[in-house]
Amino acid sequence: MKGIKIVTIGGGSSYTPELVEGFIKRYNELPVSELWLVDIPEGKDKLETVGALAKRMVDEAQVPMEIYLTLDRKKALRNADFVTTQIRVGLLEARAIDERIPLKYGVIGQETNGPGGLFKALRTVPVILDICSDIESLCPDAWLINFSNPAGLITEAVLRYSNIKKVVGLCNLPIGMRMNLAKLLNVEAERLHVDFAGLNHMVYGLNVYLDGKRITDKVLDMISSGETAGETVKNIPDFNWEPGFVKALGVLPCPYHRYYYQTAKMLEDEIASAKSEGTRAEVVKKLEAELFELYKDPDLKIKPPQLEKRGGAYYSDAACSLIHSIYTDRRDIQTVNIRNNGAIASIPDDSAAEINCVITKEGPLPISVGDLPVPVRGLVQQIKSFERVAAQAAVSGDYYEALLAMTINPLVPSDHMAKQILDEMLDAHKDYLPQFTNAQKV
Amino acid sequence: MKGIKIVTIGGGSSYTPELVEGFIKRYNELPVSELWLVDIPEGKDKLETVGALAKRMVDEAQVPMEIYLTLDRKKALRNADFVTTQIRVGLLEARAIDERIPLKYGVIGQETNGPGGLFKALRTVPVILDICSDIESLCPDAWLINFSNPAGLITEAVLRYSNIKKVVGLCNLPIGMRMNLAKLLNVEAERLHVDFAGLNHMVYGLNVYLDGKRITDKVLDMISSGETAGETVKNIPDFNWEPGFVKALGVLPCPYHRYYYQTAKMLEDEIASAKSEGTRAEVVKKLEAELFELYKDPDLKIKPPQLEKRGGAYYSDAACSLIHSIYTDRRDIQTVNIRNNGAIASIPDDSAAEINCVITKEGPLPISVGDLPVPVRGLVQQIKSFERVAAQAAVSGDYYEALLAMTINPLVPSDHMAKQILDEMLDAHKDYLPQFTNAQKV
Amino acid sequence: MKGIKIVTIGGGSSYTPELVEGFIKRYNELPVSELWLVDIPEGKDKLETVGALAKRMVDEAQVPMEIYLTLDRKKALRNADFVTTQIRVGLLEARAIDERIPLKYGVIGQETNGPGGLFKALRTVPVILDICSDIESLCPDAWLINFSNPAGLITEAVLRYSNIKKVVGLCNLPIGMRMNLAKLLNVEAERLHVDFAGLNHMVYGLNVYLDGKRITDKVLDMISSGETAGETVKNIPDFNWEPGFVKALGVLPCPYHRYYYQTAKMLEDEIASAKSEGTRAEVVKKLEAELFELYKDPDLKIKPPQLEKRGGAYYSDAACSLIHSIYTDRRDIQTVNIRNNGAIASIPDDSAAEINCVITKEGPLPISVGDLPVPVRGLVQQIKSFERVAAQAAVSGDYYEALLAMTINPLVPSDHMAKQILDEMLDAHKDYLPQFTNAQKV
Amino acid sequence: MKGIKIVTIGGGSSYTPELVEGFIKRYNELPVSELWLVDIPEGKDKLETVGALAKRMVDEAQVPMEIYLTLDRKKALRNADFVTTQIRVGLLEARAIDERIPLKYGVIGQETNGPGGLFKALRTVPVILDICSDIESLCPDAWLINFSNPAGLITEAVLRYSNIKKVVGLCNLPIGMRMNLAKLLNVEAERLHVDFAGLNHMVYGLNVYLDGKRITDKVLDMISSGETAGETVKNIPDFNWEPGFVKALGVLPCPYHRYYYQTAKMLEDEIASAKSEGTRAEVVKKLEAELFELYKDPDLKIKPPQLEKRGGAYYSDAACSLIHSIYTDRRDIQTVNIRNNGAIASIPDDSAAEINCVITKEGPLPISVGDLPVPVRGLVQQIKSFERVAAQAAVSGDYYEALLAMTINPLVPSDHMAKQILDEMLDAHKDYLPQFTNAQKV
Repeated sequence: MKGIKIVTIGGGSSYTPELVEGFIKRYNELPVSELWLVDIPEGKDKLETVGALAKRMVDEAQVPMEIYLTLDRKKALRNADFVTTQIRVGLLEARAIDERIPLKYGVIGQETNGPGGLFKALRTVPVILDICSDIESLCPDAWLINFSNPAGLITEAVLRYSNIKKVVGLCNLPIGMRMNLAKLLNVEAERLHVDFAGLNHMVYGLNVYLDGKRITDKVLDMISSGETAGETVKNIPDFNWEPGFVKALGVLPCPYHRYYYQTAKMLEDEIASAKSEGTRAEVVKKLEAELFELYKDPDLKIKPPQLEKRGGAYYSDAACSLIHSIYTDRRDIQTVNIRNNGAIASIPDDSAAEINCVITKEGPLPISVGDLPVPVRGLVQQIKSFERVAAQAAVSGDYYEALLAMTINPLVPSDHMAKQILDEMLDAHKDYLPQFTNAQKV
Repeated sequence: MKGIKIVTIGGGSSYTPELVEGFIKRYNELPVSELWLVDIPEGKDKLETVGALAKRMVDEAQVPMEIYLTLDRKKALRNADFVTTQIRVGLLEARAIDERIPLKYGVIGQETNGPGGLFKALRTVPVILDICSDIESLCPDAWLINFSNPAGLITEAVLRYSNIKKVVGLCNLPIGMRMNLAKLLNVEAERLHVDFAGLNHMVYGLNVYLDGKRITDKVLDMISSGETAGETVKNIPDFNWEPGFVKALGVLPCPYHRYYYQTAKMLEDEIASAKSEGTRAEVVKKLEAELFELYKDPDLKIKPPQLEKRGGAYYSDAACSLIHSIYTDRRDIQTVNIRNNGAIASIPDDSAAEINCVITKEGPLPISVGDLPVPVRGLVQQIKSFERVAAQAAVSGDYYEALLAMTINPLVPSDHMAKQILDEMLDAHKDYLPQFTNAQKV
Repeated sequence: MKGIKIVTIGGGSSYTPELVEGFIKRYNELPVSELWLVDIPEGKDKLETVGALAKRMVDEAQVPMEIYLTLDRKKALRNADFVTTQIRVGLLEARAIDERIPLKYGVIGQETNGPGGLFKALRTVPVILDICSDIESLCPDAWLINFSNPAGLITEAVLRYSNIKKVVGLCNLPIGMRMNLAKLLNVEAERLHVDFAGLNHMVYGLNVYLDGKRITDKVLDMISSGETAGETVKNIPDFNWEPGFVKALGVLPCPYHRYYYQTAKMLEDEIASAKSEGTRAEVVKKLEAELFELYKDPDLKIKPPQLEKRGGAYYSDAACSLIHSIYTDRRDIQTVNIRNNGAIASIPDDSAAEINCVITKEGPLPISVGDLPVPVRGLVQQIKSFERVAAQAAVSGDYYEALLAMTINPLVPSDHMAKQILDEMLDAHKDYLPQFTNAQKV
Repeated sequence: MKGIKIVTIGGGSSYTPELVEGFIKRYNELPVSELWLVDIPEGKDKLETVGALAKRMVDEAQVPMEIYLTLDRKKALRNADFVTTQIRVGLLEARAIDERIPLKYGVIGQETNGPGGLFKALRTVPVILDICSDIESLCPDAWLINFSNPAGLITEAVLRYSNIKKVVGLCNLPIGMRMNLAKLLNVEAERLHVDFAGLNHMVYGLNVYLDGKRITDKVLDMISSGETAGETVKNIPDFNWEPGFVKALGVLPCPYHRYYYQTAKMLEDEIASAKSEGTRAEVVKKLEAELFELYKDPDLKIKPPQLEKRGGAYYSDAACSLIHSIYTDRRDIQTVNIRNNGAIASIPDDSAAEINCVITKEGPLPISVGDLPVPVRGLVQQIKSFERVAAQAAVSGDYYEALLAMTINPLVPSDHMAKQILDEMLDAHKDYLPQFTNAQKV
């Protein structure tokens, strides 16, 4: 049997060792014979560092997995079985800008929410669509597994503006939430099942089961009265919810919901952090530098434990697990971003949703949940409206569509401020936004 | 032919003379033989003042319409054909509180939006449901025409929590928007038609027609580039939209959309006004006092022109016009709040929507518009989520449902602030919120 | 003010005098200055006969309406305001074939239902789409008012396969049903209102109102217990419904529903009629010959009363009335075939439905009815499935799509019989089905 | 760990040995400690015969599963984990009547379709609802696994008219179809996956995959051109589809679709069979008598191979497999009847659908398929309309609701014939239809 060919675009990422580890430990069931790490010229050094570590890891583990390093994406893609994308257009510098500029205006500056999320999408969507176009001609049967952020919005864009149907957007958040619940309840995570549904970074746990028994009310009571198992996501402070709020909401919010239900506090915290240790991008940049120092050590032959501090824990593992399940038709349930297809009533069939799926050889099949509960239905719709307008703006390069996306984002408090932030960010990111170069203004 | 019996609850309102004028001028086609003005004991003086003016108006006009004044609602309702409700639970004092408390927290304080809108609903819904219960037993065939605010939320509550089916919520906003467009385009309002759809105080003009030709793009261009015909609504400043925004939105926003798309500026303006001339309620209070002075003049036998400054222009006229159209099966198109029944795809069939209807003897029949455009669909959903939770809280008196409603309102920036505002407002309004007296907290 | 230009395609039809009469009597409000009667060369004689009568009628009435006769469709269409289509591709001979062939197989042979309806669509749709294409280039602002059968299916085809949006399909059935109810109840038709919804020739009366009071139950009881006011439609026998059936159905069926709920009896009756006086087409052919004899009489200057026997009473009048209401923005309620746009929940937004609309200058606006009642929802869906497949087959000329349409039609009892009937009818009609000339078979 | 308690109502059925075998062979993973076989007094003899065989089977297999025989349903149900229902109200005699009476009128006489299906539902629904009521009080956490026919309609009735939420309707048809496809393609069934969706006995294969590759077109081509692997269902003749029809349909029909797409031929065949070897019930009765003779043999200690001829192959195995998957949280995909919950767009959320589900400890979770293809959507809706009216009639005992159900069934050609068949069947089955005893007629 022919081995599997994986292509990882953004292969020079600090996350790659986790991915390599994931493939190594699954080798018996998931025989990856070729792993191509692709990057752009600006990332050549990192690619070589990470690639060398990957090769040492594979040697150490004694699995016959070939590691290829290349800057030639097209060459890499030919006949790939799975393509994973973990790109960061503009690198952490761009992310820091996404964080700093909105903050100046008293607006949340964050990687995937608010103006920052919009600009990450504007920079990333065209590159991903370009990759889609390569996939279409070079490996049309491949699965595209994207974990570049904003993962939901990018899935939306791929579904609407490319010919690729086999696309999955991936996030480690639902896994993290389940792990966290397990800690809170002091049980094995395997015994828990959560009905996740919503959008990426806007996903809710509709019900929680322990050994098949619904324990939703108990869990909501615990969280509602302030019990917590500590942070789920590295970059989101674990502020308590107002007592009683989560119970009244009736479903489990995700950590990112704090940006919407606790905007004021989150903003305050962001401003304070930015002044002290720096924004998240700035912190991560230091962590990354340290990681790459470690990676260079020729004696390092495993994924270093320090990587877990980076914040993306389970991300690459989630990708391996998804590929594993597709390849082996494992039929486990994973929460991924995929064409909604009716699974959530208030999201259009042809839009992306983050939803529990059973993972089969035919891909993830979404499990239907009907309508979302009344109190959360509206916010989800609003973010979906934003995502659709943002995806369209990313493709069209139309200034006013971008202004519209910025204005209808619930974290931006006015059209005038939207315009100011938009103009400053368009200018700051102009090298990565070629589609806006000639955008017409009134 | 038996004449028509109208019962106006909140008959002592300063708007009543407009209503009386409306009935007088339509008398030939709409023979109102009895107009019952009902009020509560606290409103006795105003009722008498307004009632006396009403009688003078009727005499002056020489129409055989009998005016009845009473504090006994049940007596008035028996066999009514139409019941109009224009109540203000807690009077303008309560409205001023609705405006002042949120402002202290840097949150919009407004009659129908944000925390103020929530509390107006919490005070008003139980009274309206009580009236519904009287209607059910005393005049089950009557139409209930409500123009107490928040008119959409109240229609939602009546549809969900009473047995009354013949209910219409009324707002003067769509009429005002059309008038305003007419001024902007310098044409007769009659030549314009607008496809209105959305929710109360969150209604959009989907298309504009002049003499049956679609001129939507032209109108959006004009507004988008800053042209304006002055204020539509007395209490909403006519800030320009950011150039290009309305064009990108693709539909005509209503003045209240400024609270959502221009939150920062509106808040700033509210704070400034509160400091100078006082909040809107405080301004109106003075206007009202002046009006009542006028009303007392025994020589006044018509609706005084000063009433138009009050802000509710067309409101009572809209009510007369609606009653006229139902009574005569006139089949004109009016924009009202009614059971959606599928007319707007993204709103549940059994929820209230503000939508163009053809007005027949069988009541308003909603004209189907399919799905709202993507950019506005989300915000409308979010407000509908808020309205449903708020209506439920108003009925249940559950503290946490109220907290939930407050928190998911897009104008309230966090659960913690929601709680603070909620607690302060619950206390300030406690005389008008008997259902919350024994509300349990965690 | 410029007068109105009407173009009637199929102008040589025996119905034309009713149309002319309709325009004459509305002349004051609907000043038609040009009426172009268009026909094909084969219809030249009839066109001239009818055209001459039309001119005499106009002269007699002394209205300044110019009648033009032409075989040049393109010339006629230029700058038309309204285009009406009343064509019969293959004439009554083709209709007789549509009736006779299915009967041979023991299957309903009927103009608009079953195999006959399918073939009328296969012949007519391409011609109508051709007309649409002319309209698009020659009079893009014109309204297309089609009353060629099957009117619903043709509207579906225009909506899906042309660029014309301003299309209305017209049927006299709802008018006839209301007239009939008026007779049954012994009241003026004007006092009755019926909520019509469904598909063409598959429309239901959801509710009946007399002077605005719901009398649905009373009407269902009457019909359910066998009361009747005689035939509504000339060609459908007025068999009683099984006592209690209509009451249990809960809504008012239309006469054509007998083909579905009384198939056996209708078939029996058709077979008997075919043997005695001939099929409906054969009967009509004689009537038409007689009518044309009358029309030739140079002393005839009005619509002869004998036309009413023809079966299409109110048809042309319905067209005039619709045009009148659009032109004058009359805002009355008429039942027409139009883009559903959400008005009936179980029909796709972009499909044609027969539904009450308020008729405005902007065209008919559909009144939302929500979901159809459970017992009738299924049959309506099934016919809509048939209509969509049939429309597609008419456009594609694909043999197997036609076979599919025939097989899923609920009046055709098997795929094998479907094939036999299909083959025989394709052959019999081959001159009018150029799109099937080279259809591939397995 | 406590063993599992299973209660099988209708335990005296000839299928029971397959069920017992299924539990025996899964014992290691599914430790059934108690199997209660329940029957009614009339079935005591059969229960004892089958029960004795079951005990011999268990002994032979040396598994510690206790077999209990009882006529006391309530006693059996206490604390059950799973309840399976395989009842036949009125036994095969009633089924023969369901087949014979319609045939007299030239109408399909069949266990689950047409008038026979309606009457099986009328007899069975009240008994199942009675069982539901016992489950509610005696074992509220148990799963109800029904495989009494008509399984879809009964699931609908349980969902609408009982408080039981944990209900699954089971059919062996999808398994049989997949097996059959495997034979046709000459591959292992495990390599095939089919997207099943629709209603019970009206299920379609939307797509077929071999090793995860879509081979739908190939399969449709094969079937469309007459290739077949022989009968899927014992009682449905394997008539070829008209060449090209299945291809045009675009999805895989199930054998029962022949009743709708090949009505004429199926009826002819039924009439011929009824004359020669007897109706299906009559044939089965002989087979059953033979089976019970076999079962009495004290040396028989396994499920006799002759049982497979009975026609219900895989049925009991499907039940065991479903229970196994729920108990072990196996997360395989099975096709079951369950609350639709949005999985199929054209079926109401709260109705039963037959749909692929992933089977978890929390029960079957339906996989969303969006909208059914246009050509099949209508028929599915029509059967769902029938099912809902029939379920309501079974509960209400209203004569006219039953008449309505019969008339709207697509296999019944007229309201008059519906009434005749209804009256004759109501009379023939009156002992099993107590709810209709006092039904009022007009």
